[in-house]
Amino acid sequence: MAQQEDVFKKLVAHCKEYGFVFPSSEIYDGLGAVYDYGQNGVELKNNIKKYWWDSMVLLHENVVGIDAAIFMHPTTWKASGHVDAFNDPLIDNKDSKKRYRADVLIEDLLAKYDDKIEKEVEKAAKRFGESFDAALYRQTNPRVQEHQAKRDEIHARFVKALNDSDLAELKQIIVDYEVVCPISGTKNWTDVRQFNLMFSTEMGSTADGAMKIYLRPETAQGIFVNYLNVQKTGRMKIPFGIAQIGKAFRNEIVARQFIFRMREFEQMEMQFFVRPGTEMEWFKQWKETRLKWHKALGLGDHKYRFHDHDKLAHYANAATDIEFEMPFGFKEVEGIHSRTDFDLSSHEKYSGKSIKYFDPELNESYTPYVIETSIGVDRTFLSIMAASYTEEQLENGESRVVLKLPAVLAPIKLAVMPLVKKDGLPEKAREIMNSLKFDFKCQYDEKDSIGKRYRRQDAIGTPFCVTVDHDSLTDNTVTIRYRDTMQQERVPVEKLHEIIAQKVSMKELFKKIVE
Amino acid sequence: MAQQEDVFKKLVAHCKEYGFVFPSSEIYDGLGAVYDYGQNGVELKNNIKKYWWDSMVLLHENVVGIDAAIFMHPTTWKASGHVDAFNDPLIDNKDSKKRYRADVLIEDLLAKYDDKIEKEVEKAAKRFGESFDAALYRQTNPRVQEHQAKRDEIHARFVKALNDSDLAELKQIIVDYEVVCPISGTKNWTDVRQFNLMFSTEMGSTADGAMKIYLRPETAQGIFVNYLNVQKTGRMKIPFGIAQIGKAFRNEIVARQFIFRMREFEQMEMQFFVRPGTEMEWFKQWKETRLKWHKALGLGDHKYRFHDHDKLAHYANAATDIEFEMPFGFKEVEGIHSRTDFDLSSHEKYSGKSIKYFDPELNESYTPYVIETSIGVDRTFLSIMAASYTEEQLENGESRVVLKLPAVLAPIKLAVMPLVKKDGLPEKAREIMNSLKFDFKCQYDEKDSIGKRYRRQDAIGTPFCVTVDHDSLTDNTVTIRYRDTMQQERVPVEKLHEIIAQKVSMKELFKKIVE
Repeated sequence: MAQQEDVFKKLVAHCKEYGFVFPSSEIYDGLGAVYDYGQNGVELKNNIKKYWWDSMVLLHENVVGIDAAIFMHPTTWKASGHVDAFNDPLIDNKDSKKRYRADVLIEDLLAKYDDKIEKEVEKAAKRFGESFDAALYRQTNPRVQEHQAKRDEIHARFVKALNDSDLAELKQIIVDYEVVCPISGTKNWTDVRQFNLMFSTEMGSTADGAMKIYLRPETAQGIFVNYLNVQKTGRMKIPFGIAQIGKAFRNEIVARQFIFRMREFEQMEMQFFVRPGTEMEWFKQWKETRLKWHKALGLGDHKYRFHDHDKLAHYANAATDIEFEMPFGFKEVEGIHSRTDFDLSSHEKYSGKSIKYFDPELNESYTPYVIETSIGVDRTFLSIMAASYTEEQLENGESRVVLKLPAVLAPIKLAVMPLVKKDGLPEKAREIMNSLKFDFKCQYDEKDSIGKRYRRQDAIGTPFCVTVDHDSLTDNTVTIRYRDTMQQERVPVEKLHEIIAQKVSMKELFKKIVE
Repeated sequence: MAQQEDVFKKLVAHCKEYGFVFPSSEIYDGLGAVYDYGQNGVELKNNIKKYWWDSMVLLHENVVGIDAAIFMHPTTWKASGHVDAFNDPLIDNKDSKKRYRADVLIEDLLAKYDDKIEKEVEKAAKRFGESFDAALYRQTNPRVQEHQAKRDEIHARFVKALNDSDLAELKQIIVDYEVVCPISGTKNWTDVRQFNLMFSTEMGSTADGAMKIYLRPETAQGIFVNYLNVQKTGRMKIPFGIAQIGKAFRNEIVARQFIFRMREFEQMEMQFFVRPGTEMEWFKQWKETRLKWHKALGLGDHKYRFHDHDKLAHYANAATDIEFEMPFGFKEVEGIHSRTDFDLSSHEKYSGKSIKYFDPELNESYTPYVIETSIGVDRTFLSIMAASYTEEQLENGESRVVLKLPAVLAPIKLAVMPLVKKDGLPEKAREIMNSLKFDFKCQYDEKDSIGKRYRRQDAIGTPFCVTVDHDSLTDNTVTIRYRDTMQQERVPVEKLHEIIAQKVSMKELFKKIVE
């Protein structure tokens, strides 16, 4: 674990050093839990978005896109339940004046008991050697049993308090188990209060006052309020989906783990509208399709798993996460939810307008049910970076850092390098680059030794380096060097386009999804 | 002019009816000056963005992208001048309680005098017939002269008041020339006050209170605060540019003309960093390059013109607009500004950090000068829609509405249609579509007569319709029908990819820009 944390720190540093992710407004010492994408990060991010978008609207005839504004009518958030229920329970320590999420404090408390148990088990394992049976020890050792009992007791109270939205009980757990503030070390706590996570602002200016609106905390509602317009003007027939990519905003109190949980983030969401009663079938199908989408990237099938929800949100009758093995454990990257007709019905109620669909096959009208696939752009970005970041020992004793990004997503597809900065090689290199640059993002590099230039391209994940040497001038061939294998191959210049195009084509990924 | 307004109304209606642009949150009766892009609009918009982005980062080796967050450290907006100076002068009518921009009331007043003059001239033209000399009449007719004098007097006071930021004088003009509220009809006005156009919100939650932050009113500052990070990590050498696409927000009091002036809008901005003293040369070059970008779309060269600024913003030493002929006149679509070192110097001052560039050729350090190209995505979208919207009388006496969109930007590239819904034609049509759908956004349509289907595709700007008939089953040929000419051609199925690819390729546009 310590090693994994170390890798994560290196990854964050790498992201900054190589122009992938910068802290926002860094010259003003940053802004909490907000990040900017640099010159390489933006290309990777755009490629991820394109891969998702095209996989939705090109692969599925019955999925169309929209782009709704971040600003929406405030009643939207009343209907969706966000105004009343999108809250975090907060508690302040009176001595340090620091504010915490009460649920996170209790989760940390539970984690402490887990740690205690693990330490007991580890100690015993060392004592007993190879014959040690950890499972048996857990079940029989009195000290482990005691910790486990305490943990279960806290956990039971915690789950009940969350289900009942019982803020007083949340505080009581913190008091009863003597949770202390990590800063002040004291138990001097305020009561727990609810804190809405939506950012609000004021729009317009009439003499009577402005209108309070919210920055959308999710993109989904932009699809629901446009459902009828899209269905009618696009002549869509159930089942069909609406896809959208866009920013969402949550005033997270405890935002952490780099770009994993940010206050401003980007979602790729698709709402798929189906006949009531068929939702479980579609839920299953979209689970499969979405997992294929992830796996087609080739980061390693074992890095993904489903995590079905035990506790369902008020709007859902089934829900699962696609989790990815991040350096800090398996974490949610995408959620797939069967949202029933909760949202459309609620908008019907609040707007007073009918959002019914007339189904010609059934000859009846109904409010469609919804399967949602909701994936974080930033989390996907992080998962891809984490899986690609590799430190390698080379045969010559040196080491290299290489980003083994899927070629189709790499920011720069091709680096073109003259072996030396003279004898017409730069001109030849540029000529080659000019013939390819409208098709692939290229980078020209003539500075430093070829070895150094390869290292630079490895660090940003460029899959192909093309070196132009003196022979190139006479026989019109170049050396192409492959990032992952570091193997080199001599190829005619006129073959370059084909070699690269085939390896960076999204079509190859799409084929894996539809097969 | 009345006819043009009529066209504009039809265009707005068309945008809604065919899934290009919907009023935001329409089921809640909309949100002022905010719009959502529908299933066809989002594709057109994405294509525009891709055209711009690729023209920046693929065509120019020394231009790289970034994607900075909407949230930025609030000091950014102190340094940029927006906190202190990004204001509109507002005035309320005490009877109607309606609020207006004082400058807009005065502009409307000036327009009224223009109207009066035009009416006098028109009346005279009718009276005198063909021999009428309008220019002479304007110079000599006492009534026209009187209106003109009044107009000049108001205009002079107005310009001076704006230059002096003299709010009392703005009010005095409104009082002196007896401007009435269009709602109440009274002259009962409040004083004029400044109103900041930035949206603000509160971030985070410490026990001590939250931090007031702003939604960025322009994307440019995201580039400036990241300048140093990009320059260093990207090893960029002056001159170089940073490009960005993203949302910006302005709390416009009088937002109007559909998506032309919205409260939430999207910008495509590029800041080009140059050696001081060379900025005029680069200003000229970027003017030319940007105009070529617009003209390459083929909407008609005569629809563009430069409008050089007489009055420069405090940060600029040269500025021009690229104006496009909208249905409501020539309007700014893009601005090109020589911003000097105003922004970088200001961020240096406020952050206390050096943003100097060491120029190895000059062997000295300096703060770079900046040429900015700033184009509105939504305005470009509107300009393209306006230029493409065409009502045509056909030879058979019918009429059609066709969107003559540049093929490369069209939301749907290809519609595939079986002539009839039987005899294996739908299967053949789907087979053809499946072979093309990973490369081009396709639409399958088997409903209604072929003529009706063509009309539907015309209305959303689909450049190619492919019809599958009984002969297709035996000789593997189809009819391809071209949107603008309505001409039809019999072609082998295996030629379709080539025909379409060539006509929807962005490379052809890029060639026009670089030539």
